Amino acid sequence: MRKKIAILGSTGSIGTQALDVVRYHKDIQVTALAAGGNAKRLEEQIREFKPKLACLWREDKAKELKAAVADLDVRVVWGMEGLIEAAAGTDAELVVTAVVGMIGIRPTIAAMEAGKDIALANKETLVTAGHIIMPLAKEKGVRILPVDSEHSAIFQCIQGSGGNRLCRILLTASGGPFRGWTREQMEKVRPEDALKHPNWAMGQKITIDSSTMVNKGLEVMEARWLFDVEMDQIQVVVQPDSVIHSMVEYEDGAVMAQLGTPDMRLPIQYALYYPERRFLPGARLDFAALTQLSFETPDMENFRGLGLAYEAGRRGGSLPAVFNAANEKAVAMFLRGQIGYLSIMSLIEGAMERHRIIQNPAVDQILEAEQEAYEYIDSQVNSGK
Amino acid sequence: MRKKIAILGSTGSIGTQALDVVRYHKDIQVTALAAGGNAKRLEEQIREFKPKLACLWREDKAKELKAAVADLDVRVVWGMEGLIEAAAGTDAELVVTAVVGMIGIRPTIAAMEAGKDIALANKETLVTAGHIIMPLAKEKGVRILPVDSEHSAIFQCIQGSGGNRLCRILLTASGGPFRGWTREQMEKVRPEDALKHPNWAMGQKITIDSSTMVNKGLEVMEARWLFDVEMDQIQVVVQPDSVIHSMVEYEDGAVMAQLGTPDMRLPIQYALYYPERRFLPGARLDFAALTQLSFETPDMENFRGLGLAYEAGRRGGSLPAVFNAANEKAVAMFLRGQIGYLSIMSLIEGAMERHRIIQNPAVDQILEAEQEAYEYIDSQVNSGK
Repeated sequence: MRKKIAILGSTGSIGTQALDVVRYHKDIQVTALAAGGNAKRLEEQIREFKPKLACLWREDKAKELKAAVADLDVRVVWGMEGLIEAAAGTDAELVVTAVVGMIGIRPTIAAMEAGKDIALANKETLVTAGHIIMPLAKEKGVRILPVDSEHSAIFQCIQGSGGNRLCRILLTASGGPFRGWTREQMEKVRPEDALKHPNWAMGQKITIDSSTMVNKGLEVMEARWLFDVEMDQIQVVVQPDSVIHSMVEYEDGAVMAQLGTPDMRLPIQYALYYPERRFLPGARLDFAALTQLSFETPDMENFRGLGLAYEAGRRGGSLPAVFNAANEKAVAMFLRGQIGYLSIMSLIEGAMERHRIIQNPAVDQILEAEQEAYEYIDSQVNSGK
Repeated sequence: MRKKIAILGSTGSIGTQALDVVRYHKDIQVTALAAGGNAKRLEEQIREFKPKLACLWREDKAKELKAAVADLDVRVVWGMEGLIEAAAGTDAELVVTAVVGMIGIRPTIAAMEAGKDIALANKETLVTAGHIIMPLAKEKGVRILPVDSEHSAIFQCIQGSGGNRLCRILLTASGGPFRGWTREQMEKVRPEDALKHPNWAMGQKITIDSSTMVNKGLEVMEARWLFDVEMDQIQVVVQPDSVIHSMVEYEDGAVMAQLGTPDMRLPIQYALYYPERRFLPGARLDFAALTQLSFETPDMENFRGLGLAYEAGRRGGSLPAVFNAANEKAVAMFLRGQIGYLSIMSLIEGAMERHRIIQNPAVDQILEAEQEAYEYIDSQVNSGK
């Protein structure tokens, strides 16, 4: 019997690569596809993968799509209600959650409540609602399978833990295109500079987050929930070659690492077929050609986003949601040329300072904290700060 | 209840480090200790660890020891009969086989037949008799737990295999002190040059074997049996820093690696407590201080021992026993100043060329092949070649 999956965020970088994996192996049935506003790409995907349900976030685009695929046996839905239906309303066993932003939280919870495993590529879910998601996964007996290359690497490393306790997670980072830069140099960074990421092919927002190391900070917070460790058990190691995808250390000092070429299809495929590994076409690591790997300590002073993430994670509650929302808003403004590069970090810091932490927030409170951060940044930027 | 172990080769490098682990954790009972000729060291170990049985290979030394420990409740035995008794004749659950050379084979088989798990540090056992040992382990339901750092690393990596097939083993090598040397330079190597091994604290014979990469060749042959792969699925990767202890690659291209400081107590302890990991005092890998790892392809031309080992392993039968015995004899002669450094390799090659391979040899035939190689080398050296 074919495995059934739904993909939320199917037209993005992770979504399309997940569909590459499905296309290659030909033994997974796609029950639902959901995207933001790219009706044309989603239509192509519907014609190729034949899901029973398709969702576009934007209602106007959804209606266009509905007309365009009237010849097919597919129901088109939209908005949060539609996204939740795509997540929970089909007979998929596993849902790939690759939408960007906090809109991923409710559909993820809905899918888990419907007993579906989650291939998690939406960072915000665990960063802001890890205290809700992880106990729910346990209660419902569903798996949270990480799709991020770092979290997948850690997950692969602990497959052989044999019940032994992790002491330390060594989360690797490429360091981004501005590794080694001073604040003075960073002040002048334009969107087009930040969008040239050296190692991985990724979406725009995550590329900026990678350049500021905010992405790494989000990953640290995510890892804390996924692997049930304290923030301070997670150490970021800069490994500019992106060959070591992350490592774990045990009590005896043994370090287990996962290495590979920078190909996101590997962690995606591992999550889709877990615990089975399948052949993946593509280059293999060639140690003869590699010659060397280098390591650096992250520059927490110039990459303040990472330090702020540790602070948000340690203090917890609703603060990680504020950190994330402030970053999301500030990055969007930077990409539109409204603010300078370093303002991303100072706006996050300002939003965090201003926020009164709610411990153990419910989803509504998380979304309120998000809104508050958005508004704060709007007001700061519009007041010309 | 305390775990019970016997240690064969207790006064050597692995044996004493195994006893360090026992001393630190205080919850393992040593039932038997066996050594070659170091009566004084063995007496100290008997007084500290109180085994019921002690064996010295040399009868004269054993009788000295017997007199010296007459005040203790310990029986002293000697020779092959004694060694077999130490391996199989106590209530140990696990036997550490850390004797050097092919004398390790019979006691290892005896221990397995008595249902004991093996912490294997005697390379010759699998190199020469893997075709006997591995099926026997299966038949008797006993574990072969590798103690070599490389094999332990591979073993640690495949703990999380989840039944997925290995594609490739990447066995790391330091490259030894003569990495990058020409044959002309190597011609002049004296024993004292070869005994300065850069990374690991080891015995004399294995230090020479490491410098010639014959040791790596033996490890490749050992890995082939331990992990049930073909010789050509094992690739030697020179990693001069000895930080990556070995790696495995799966079908999807994922590479799992085990890294650590060069501390043999880690693999020893992992074998003693497997699958449990215990705290091990000592330094941890510090990636900030590490800065970089480098990789090289082994120089099979100048380190012919490695190429010869691949040939011996591929052709199989009694040839690996000849490879090993010829090396053992030649290294002993080199250490006594009787032959030059490069003659080690040419003598191995000569012995291999001359040998008529017996397929699937019994233990007696393995030992005969060994004897034949010894005699060939004696005759070559004595005829002044």
